Amino acid sequence: MSVVITGIGELTTNAEHDQLADAAIVLDGDRVAWVGPAAAAPDADERVDVGGRAVLPGWVDSHTHLVFAGDRTAEFAARMAGEPYTAGGIATTVAATRAASDAELAGVLRRHVAEALAQGTTYLETKTGYGLTVADEVRSAALAGRVVDEVTFLGAHLVPPGVSTEDYVALVCGEMLDAVAPLVGWADVFCETGAFDEDASRAVLTAAAAKGLGLRVHGNQLGPGPGVRLAVELGAASVDHCTYLAPADVDALATSDTVATLLPATDLSTRQPLPDARALLDAGATVALASNCNPGSSYTSSMAYCVTTAVLQLRMSVAEAVRAATWGGARALRREDEVGVLRVGARADVHVLDAPSATHLAYRPGVPLTHAVWRAGIRVR
Amino acid sequence: MSVVITGIGELTTNAEHDQLADAAIVLDGDRVAWVGPAAAAPDADERVDVGGRAVLPGWVDSHTHLVFAGDRTAEFAARMAGEPYTAGGIATTVAATRAASDAELAGVLRRHVAEALAQGTTYLETKTGYGLTVADEVRSAALAGRVVDEVTFLGAHLVPPGVSTEDYVALVCGEMLDAVAPLVGWADVFCETGAFDEDASRAVLTAAAAKGLGLRVHGNQLGPGPGVRLAVELGAASVDHCTYLAPADVDALATSDTVATLLPATDLSTRQPLPDARALLDAGATVALASNCNPGSSYTSSMAYCVTTAVLQLRMSVAEAVRAATWGGARALRREDEVGVLRVGARADVHVLDAPSATHLAYRPGVPLTHAVWRAGIRVR
Repeated sequence: MSVVITGIGELTTNAEHDQLADAAIVLDGDRVAWVGPAAAAPDADERVDVGGRAVLPGWVDSHTHLVFAGDRTAEFAARMAGEPYTAGGIATTVAATRAASDAELAGVLRRHVAEALAQGTTYLETKTGYGLTVADEVRSAALAGRVVDEVTFLGAHLVPPGVSTEDYVALVCGEMLDAVAPLVGWADVFCETGAFDEDASRAVLTAAAAKGLGLRVHGNQLGPGPGVRLAVELGAASVDHCTYLAPADVDALATSDTVATLLPATDLSTRQPLPDARALLDAGATVALASNCNPGSSYTSSMAYCVTTAVLQLRMSVAEAVRAATWGGARALRREDEVGVLRVGARADVHVLDAPSATHLAYRPGVPLTHAVWRAGIRVR
Repeated sequence: MSVVITGIGELTTNAEHDQLADAAIVLDGDRVAWVGPAAAAPDADERVDVGGRAVLPGWVDSHTHLVFAGDRTAEFAARMAGEPYTAGGIATTVAATRAASDAELAGVLRRHVAEALAQGTTYLETKTGYGLTVADEVRSAALAGRVVDEVTFLGAHLVPPGVSTEDYVALVCGEMLDAVAPLVGWADVFCETGAFDEDASRAVLTAAAAKGLGLRVHGNQLGPGPGVRLAVELGAASVDHCTYLAPADVDALATSDTVATLLPATDLSTRQPLPDARALLDAGATVALASNCNPGSSYTSSMAYCVTTAVLQLRMSVAEAVRAATWGGARALRREDEVGVLRVGARADVHVLDAPSATHLAYRPGVPLTHAVWRAGIRVR
């Protein structure tokens, strides 16, 4: 089954010809089969004219926490009334997640994945980290693996109440990692005051790398810290948040393959400063944008909101922000050959905007602009 | 034809019982016929269970500019690349609007009204101001009057190229006002450097008041100025923008019936500071939130985005922001007895969120949360 999408007013490919006007694209099975000027488009089984609309690769959301239960609306409201955000709130979700049935957790997960897909997110990473026992982390990883594209082990999200840090780090690096590693591709650590310090973070990441897992780090979210430095030193694919960066952190990112993943919806929701995207981009670092969808610090699945905020408030150009939310996310997951890009052989993940150009994502804040979505060649909206 | 909406998890009324849990509401014809606890709800012709979702009055968007043609995407992109916003860009839209056919203008207008309605905006003001000749302003007012609830005459939007300020103000206060006044309820002036100074603004507003029109003012948008003071002095229903306020402006608003209408999407899109909503609210001023939807300085129809921004960045509480975007907008249009409120006798304008509480409007930024909309008793989504 093939489909030719014609009438594309502006096509963003993130490939050789970055933006084409009056373009077409052919999807064959789950792959992109052809990209080029509309006048030269080959035939296909089905023809869809998008009437001059803009087309992008589907969003690649490289940072979410969707295996959860419970409600933190009241905590959010209290924060808006002046309470500070701390890592400690995670424990609320841990208790609710442990108490939930598999069916409940799967329901929450599927609902949020569907919500993201309806907004154009076609490739999704999610993390464990609300289980924090061997059994609960295994359960989280297994449930996530049935629904999302990439699963990350985040046993080192918080030291659970009633356990010493030393004992918990030993558990994460030993029995928990042994049990979860076969179910995931990545390991992550929340390297932050109130969560895991540099030594503990290094221990977790080193143990995970020895198991063959790719590395990701939560770093420099709530204050300056060693997260970025450690991520670069250990060759992590991505270090996420990057809200508080020293010049040395920017330099380290600019001269490494570690992606700086910015989560601006989180910074707004926790009343932190916004990250200095311009310093990172101007220094030559690779930047990704992600939602960090989770019930505590950032309960949004809207990649469009992240792009809007990146342009209006982080002073990224529209091209930079769109690329960061597609190609950048893919690069942060080391999948840039296959997703976040529209070229022959890539996965057929296509996002049609109800607008003539991607600029409208920032020009029309809040207006729902997803017109149509194909994921792996299947039209889902 | 009556309908009872049951299963309301949280009902915001802006009336006697501001928030009710487990509530129901009955719509009869175009009016609200009953509001109260679900257990006591009377029968109706139709029954709709909203499954625990939150219900609000429809948004009242009290400030838009929807009679326009042409495209200013490139101007927006240039601004994001560092160009400053000035009032002068309005002339681009004036040229395109004059050149457009009635059918084109009506098409643009209807498309944007439908877009707003689909997002829960059930009561809408729009302005002339891209015509700036007698014939073009009359045409704009007539077209708007067929589609929106409230029409404002904004002949004093910009002095058109090739005309002296003195001649143009005389035209606006004389022949243009005579021709447009029968078609509108309100008059407005853009009191700003580069547009109309205090004397010119006073002349326009005074002439409009003498014709029986209600007054509105664009003031203090791009710098400190006399707009707020003038609006209060002349008893305007609303002064809109309020980005640059002196303490005396805040005091004047707090001790008057003039509503301070904040347009935060505009400030983000023009890279101005955000207005000091807290100073206004803490002083006791009435605050409204509106979109300012227009192709130049704020091309959004999303009242949800305005509410999200008001909570996350203007430090309004969710209750304050929701009230400002419903009751506040109605008060700015002197329609608070009838819209922006859910009580017996009010217009049946109902917005059902796909969320258990209004808090989710800020807790879930960018996620489209409009589940169902009734406007004047008719379900439109």
